[in-house]
Amino acid sequence: MSNMIKPRTLAGFMELLPDRQLQMESMMQTLREVYGSYGFYPLDTPVLEASEVLLAKGGGDTEKQIYRFTKGDTDLSMRFDLTVPLAKYVAMNYGSLSFPFRRYQIGKVYRGERPQRGRYREFYQADIDIIGDGELDIKNEAEIPSIIYNTFVKMGLTRFKIKVNNRKVLSGFFNMLDCELEPMDILRVIDKLDKIGLEKVMAELSEMGVSEKDQQMIAGFISRTGEPEEILEGLKEYEGRNELFDRGVRELGEVVRYLGDFGVPRENFGIDLTIARGLDYYTGTVYETTLLDHPEIGSVCSGGRYDDLAGYYTNKKLPGVGISIGLTRLFFVLDDKKYISAAGAPSAVDLLVLPMSDDLSAPIAFARQMREQGLRTQIYYEGRKFKAKMAYADKLKAPYAAIFGDDEIAAQKVSLKNMQTGEQQTLTYDEALAILQASVESRKNARIIEEDHE
Amino acid sequence: MSNMIKPRTLAGFMELLPDRQLQMESMMQTLREVYGSYGFYPLDTPVLEASEVLLAKGGGDTEKQIYRFTKGDTDLSMRFDLTVPLAKYVAMNYGSLSFPFRRYQIGKVYRGERPQRGRYREFYQADIDIIGDGELDIKNEAEIPSIIYNTFVKMGLTRFKIKVNNRKVLSGFFNMLDCELEPMDILRVIDKLDKIGLEKVMAELSEMGVSEKDQQMIAGFISRTGEPEEILEGLKEYEGRNELFDRGVRELGEVVRYLGDFGVPRENFGIDLTIARGLDYYTGTVYETTLLDHPEIGSVCSGGRYDDLAGYYTNKKLPGVGISIGLTRLFFVLDDKKYISAAGAPSAVDLLVLPMSDDLSAPIAFARQMREQGLRTQIYYEGRKFKAKMAYADKLKAPYAAIFGDDEIAAQKVSLKNMQTGEQQTLTYDEALAILQASVESRKNARIIEEDHE
Repeated sequence: MSNMIKPRTLAGFMELLPDRQLQMESMMQTLREVYGSYGFYPLDTPVLEASEVLLAKGGGDTEKQIYRFTKGDTDLSMRFDLTVPLAKYVAMNYGSLSFPFRRYQIGKVYRGERPQRGRYREFYQADIDIIGDGELDIKNEAEIPSIIYNTFVKMGLTRFKIKVNNRKVLSGFFNMLDCELEPMDILRVIDKLDKIGLEKVMAELSEMGVSEKDQQMIAGFISRTGEPEEILEGLKEYEGRNELFDRGVRELGEVVRYLGDFGVPRENFGIDLTIARGLDYYTGTVYETTLLDHPEIGSVCSGGRYDDLAGYYTNKKLPGVGISIGLTRLFFVLDDKKYISAAGAPSAVDLLVLPMSDDLSAPIAFARQMREQGLRTQIYYEGRKFKAKMAYADKLKAPYAAIFGDDEIAAQKVSLKNMQTGEQQTLTYDEALAILQASVESRKNARIIEEDHE
Repeated sequence: MSNMIKPRTLAGFMELLPDRQLQMESMMQTLREVYGSYGFYPLDTPVLEASEVLLAKGGGDTEKQIYRFTKGDTDLSMRFDLTVPLAKYVAMNYGSLSFPFRRYQIGKVYRGERPQRGRYREFYQADIDIIGDGELDIKNEAEIPSIIYNTFVKMGLTRFKIKVNNRKVLSGFFNMLDCELEPMDILRVIDKLDKIGLEKVMAELSEMGVSEKDQQMIAGFISRTGEPEEILEGLKEYEGRNELFDRGVRELGEVVRYLGDFGVPRENFGIDLTIARGLDYYTGTVYETTLLDHPEIGSVCSGGRYDDLAGYYTNKKLPGVGISIGLTRLFFVLDDKKYISAAGAPSAVDLLVLPMSDDLSAPIAFARQMREQGLRTQIYYEGRKFKAKMAYADKLKAPYAAIFGDDEIAAQKVSLKNMQTGEQQTLTYDEALAILQASVESRKNARIIEEDHE
């Protein structure tokens, strides 16, 4: 015992208590179900990859954060996102896949950032991507908002907005300007609009040599708001001057066109011409999702269309569209903002069986029947006093306890106690089953998240 | 393109093609459901831990295999099992947990073994454990075979045997011998019985100085076979001579006693007095599970009772019982032995919607309705020829394709094609739904694994 080590978990690594983990697991199950309902394959790639493969793209801010080491003479890295492993997978297995190839992956990724509140070094990403072989129809981009919408609604949220833009519209617009700067350079500044405001964006553009006239035009463009149709109508003003721009506007129109058929309510959707997404590789529709009551936390589900997924591994042109949820951070934020606790603590059981007699045949057989009917049923086997048993049922937040004393066993009955009301009835197994099934049914649509918690 | 890197996955790291991954995912979902049905909490701990914490126990064969490295000035290790992280978790969160604490964890672990066929460096373990505070009733040990049984049956296996023994019986028996060797040393030799046979075991014991008389007694003991009750009856011969032995026999009796109530068929269960499990920390019931048609692959689900889970982290006595499935290896073996392919390839979709017209409103709205009814529905958006669309449906193994041409749209109908029979009918949405739901229902009990594939 002298060699005892203090147990601890590394900073920046989320490890939840059982109740919270139950909620996290429920959230992951919702994601699996929603993604699965759109025909996405589950995919699983290794956490460790050869550094040469994982860092093929090289450079960038991420490289410093990567957990990289050698074992034997192999240079290894832990994955820092799920996109690079996807690119590797698709390039490697090109001949075995059917395109468009739809996959989702919910997996841990690793970034050695400076740990701070709400930032994690190990965190789950939940990604979906649709990869085409050579080409991919714009309709795939139009479907993404409905997937985002369903995902968030199934988790229990309604007060969120999916914001889209199109990189062709942005780039095309910048091509119309007099200034000779690379569109990407201007985009990088505009991307800060939310953080620093219009005035400072203009000041930065001015510093970069953007003329007064161009600044006016940019300000006018990125300040357009309103219903999607109004914005699209307004963009006609610029039509016919740049081919890329015109194509982008048509694409944006296609994304808006089927929203109703996809079942995305208008209040959950908007065009936001200021969204650029930092990454260079997006080429079409881009997506962000914000919580209306907490815009300060930024986008909780983002992504976009890209034209070249795996250029570092293959000559095949593999365009795609994808979105990603930073699940660990989202969970932290929802917990922090009391969305999760407000939903009420869940229980790992629908029923706790409490034997009060030495003969466990009846309670064990009963528990087995209940399980066969789909009820999550735990038997408490410890030889403790009645009070201790009930205290355990309380701690477990079991909705019901099934008590088996000698009388119940002799009568082939069970005493079923509703742990919330305290009401207790002696019932036949079938009667108990009916009550328990009704209880499960009533909790079936219980959400992990409660929005209106104030 | 000159900097192109050959995409590859590290040796010893499983990465499955979509169809296989769908089956693996289905297997994991079965485990989550079965474990959940017994009231186990899901748990998730980091892949990375401080080396000082993870290797508190130190030494052993595993240490050489560990992926250990430093980042900044932190000495880190990737977990090599799920038991040490559990011990850490329970010791750390002792005050917040309710005991007995039941948890399952399905997670990847890492061991840098020499890669060879069927051996993995990154692999899933699926563990369940029940942890008591100070004490844990033997009935918990008696429940484990029913969990193993249900897990394997739900995966589609029936030809397997759960074999149990009790370490107290073994240790107690060895205490009765004349020889002065540590019981653990004798156990280690007996543990090789399956691999090297009785004669060589006896030869080894002889070399260690075990007398002829003791060897006879050991041979007689470990050769006892038959129905559990017969073996228990036979063990009475030794009763009254050693307290530990007697207690072990009583425990074994308790484990056998409720098998029927738990619903474990006799043909799937047996007492095997030769099972010792290599690990030193088991103190009561030990479990192994073998596939009757492939005994050569060894145990596919093993574990046992231990008395001191977290002695390296806490003074609290935390006894428990747990079992572990090496899921990645099990999947490999089942695939290798054709159990998995024989079950038929699964599909990620219940329905593929094929629009044939430029207006996608009807097919999108239809797909949405089908999804709301629980059908996994993908829309094929690419503007390809009919033949290419059908070829995609085939590759996807979609059971049905829903075709929307101008005629169908005008009539508010859909042409539903059964992809297996080729039969095609033009139907109302409700008629199509009924057929699709019946199809899903008929595949509901489809197993991942097909045992009788020969």
